[in-house]
Amino acid sequence: MNTDRRNFLKTGAVAAGLIGFEKLAGSGFSAQNVSLNLSFQEAIPPGSSLNEKFDYMERLGIVGFEPNGRNLASRVNEIQQALRGRNIKVSVICAGFAEWLIAENEAQRQECLRTSKEIMAAGAELGALGMILVPQFIRQQPSLPMPQSREVLIEHLKELGEFGMKHNTTLILEPLNRRETWYLRLVADGAAMARDTECAGVTVMGDFWHMTWEETSDYGAFWSAGKYLNHVHVASRARRLMPGEDGEADNYIEGFRALKEMNYQHYVSFECGTRGEREETVPAAVKLLREQWAVA
Amino acid sequence: MNTDRRNFLKTGAVAAGLIGFEKLAGSGFSAQNVSLNLSFQEAIPPGSSLNEKFDYMERLGIVGFEPNGRNLASRVNEIQQALRGRNIKVSVICAGFAEWLIAENEAQRQECLRTSKEIMAAGAELGALGMILVPQFIRQQPSLPMPQSREVLIEHLKELGEFGMKHNTTLILEPLNRRETWYLRLVADGAAMARDTECAGVTVMGDFWHMTWEETSDYGAFWSAGKYLNHVHVASRARRLMPGEDGEADNYIEGFRALKEMNYQHYVSFECGTRGEREETVPAAVKLLREQWAVA
Repeated sequence: MNTDRRNFLKTGAVAAGLIGFEKLAGSGFSAQNVSLNLSFQEAIPPGSSLNEKFDYMERLGIVGFEPNGRNLASRVNEIQQALRGRNIKVSVICAGFAEWLIAENEAQRQECLRTSKEIMAAGAELGALGMILVPQFIRQQPSLPMPQSREVLIEHLKELGEFGMKHNTTLILEPLNRRETWYLRLVADGAAMARDTECAGVTVMGDFWHMTWEETSDYGAFWSAGKYLNHVHVASRARRLMPGEDGEADNYIEGFRALKEMNYQHYVSFECGTRGEREETVPAAVKLLREQWAVA
Repeated sequence: MNTDRRNFLKTGAVAAGLIGFEKLAGSGFSAQNVSLNLSFQEAIPPGSSLNEKFDYMERLGIVGFEPNGRNLASRVNEIQQALRGRNIKVSVICAGFAEWLIAENEAQRQECLRTSKEIMAAGAELGALGMILVPQFIRQQPSLPMPQSREVLIEHLKELGEFGMKHNTTLILEPLNRRETWYLRLVADGAAMARDTECAGVTVMGDFWHMTWEETSDYGAFWSAGKYLNHVHVASRARRLMPGEDGEADNYIEGFRALKEMNYQHYVSFECGTRGEREETVPAAVKLLREQWAVA
C-alpha cells in the first residue's frame, strides 16, 4: 500500500473511525529493516555450563535465551549472573507449570494457576516477555467439555494475564499440533482467546513446527495472530530438528515475510533437537534463517 | 513486494524451489482491478418470484445467486429458465444435505454423503462453483471423538471432493462460530482439512459473520484460506442483518484488502436478515460494500 492510498484510507468517509487493524508497517522495502532476533532454548547451544553456552551464543549473535520454567525461581540468580555484561536477554520462559487450566478437577486448575504465577514472577525478575502456556495436552483428561472449558479458560487466562501485567510480563498461549493437543491448534484461535480475555497480559505465539501440520499458510497464521503475537518457535519441518536438517521442507520465508510486514520486534526461538553434530547443525541453522529472513 | 524483490526471491539460491505459496497478486495498485462479485441468497432481494428477484438483482448489478440445496434437483429447470439471458450466474449452493459427516452412526454419515452428492450433481447442472458443507452443527450428537472424527471426515470429504471434480464442481467447507459448532470454527482449520484430503475438489470459505467471533483478523483469516478459498459470506457484524445495519461494526475493509491482494475471483454472497425495509437496506448494503471494496 503506498502513502497516497494509506492516507485515502485514513481520511475516506467510509473508513473514518472504522479501521481497527491496520498493517503495522508498510509492505515492501520499509520492512527490510526489521531485525531477526534469534533466541535459543538451553539445550540448543553446545557447552557444559550456562557460561559456555552463552559464550557460544554470543559468537553466533544470538540475542535471546529461553529457559524452561521448571524450578525457575531457584535459578534466577544463576541466570542473572551468567547473563551479566552480555548482549543476551531472557526472551521468554518455556512452560514448567503443573496440571492444566481446563481440568475438570478444580484443584488441578488451581495448581496450574499457582505454579504458573510462581514461574511468571521468576520470569519477570529475569525480564522475560512472558511465560508460554499450553491450555491442555492431549493426555490431560478429564477436561471440561466445550463450551464450559472455553469460559473457564478465559477466566483463568484473564487472572494470569492481570498477574503478568502487575509484574511487567505476560502469558503466551502456544497452539500445538494435533498429536499433542486437540484443544488449541490454530494460531488464530489462540489470538481469539487472548482477545476474549480483554487483558493485554494475554498473548499468543506461533511455532513453525506445529504450524506445519495445522496451518496451510505461515503468512496467514502470523497475520491472524496480529497484535497478539508475542513469540515464535522454530524447528525443521519434518522431524523437529535444526532448521535445514530437513532440506527443502525447511522454508520459513512466507512466515518471515509476515513478521517483517508486521514489524515484529520480539524473538524467533529455537525449540528442536539435532541428528547431526551440534557444532555444525546449529551455525548452519542460524545461517539459513538469516538468509531466508533477508529474502523474505 | 516490488518486481526486483520478487525476481530475487524467485531466483535466489536460498529460495530456489522452496516457495510453495506466493502472493497471487502484487499488493498495492495492481490489486485495484479485482472486481467485487456480489451474490444473493434467495431470501435477500424483494420480489415474489425468481424472475422478480432476478430483475431486482440485475438492477443492482448483483452477478451471483446462491440457492439453498434443499430439493435442488427438482428446481434445476425452474432456476435455469429464470436465469436465461441474464447477467447472473449461480454462485454456489448453500447446504441442504441431511445428517452430518462425523456422526457416530455410520448410516447417518452415509445419508449425509448420499444427499450431498445429490445436491452437488444438481448444483453442477446449474454451474455452481460448489456446495457449502458444515461438518457438524452443535446439536448433532453423538459425534465421533477426536481424533477419529478428523480421520473419518477427511476420508468422506475426499469422496465428496472427487465426486465434485467428476461433475466440475466442488465441496466448500464452512467454518461457523461457536454458538453453532465447536468442530470447525477457524478458516485456517478448514483450509487444513481441504489440504489434508489431497483433493482439489475440497475447498473452504470464510463468512464475515462467523469470523467476527472466531477470528481476530479478517486479513489473516482470508490469507490463511489462501488458494483453498472458494466463497465468502457477508452480513452485518453484530446482528447478522444487511451490512450497514450495525453501523460502524460493519467494517469489511481489512478482509476485502486480503481478497484483492489474493486476486480473489469468486463471490461475496449475502446471508443475512434485515430489520428495515428490504428495498432500502439491500441497496444501502450493496453501496456500502462497494465503497469499502474501493478503499480496501
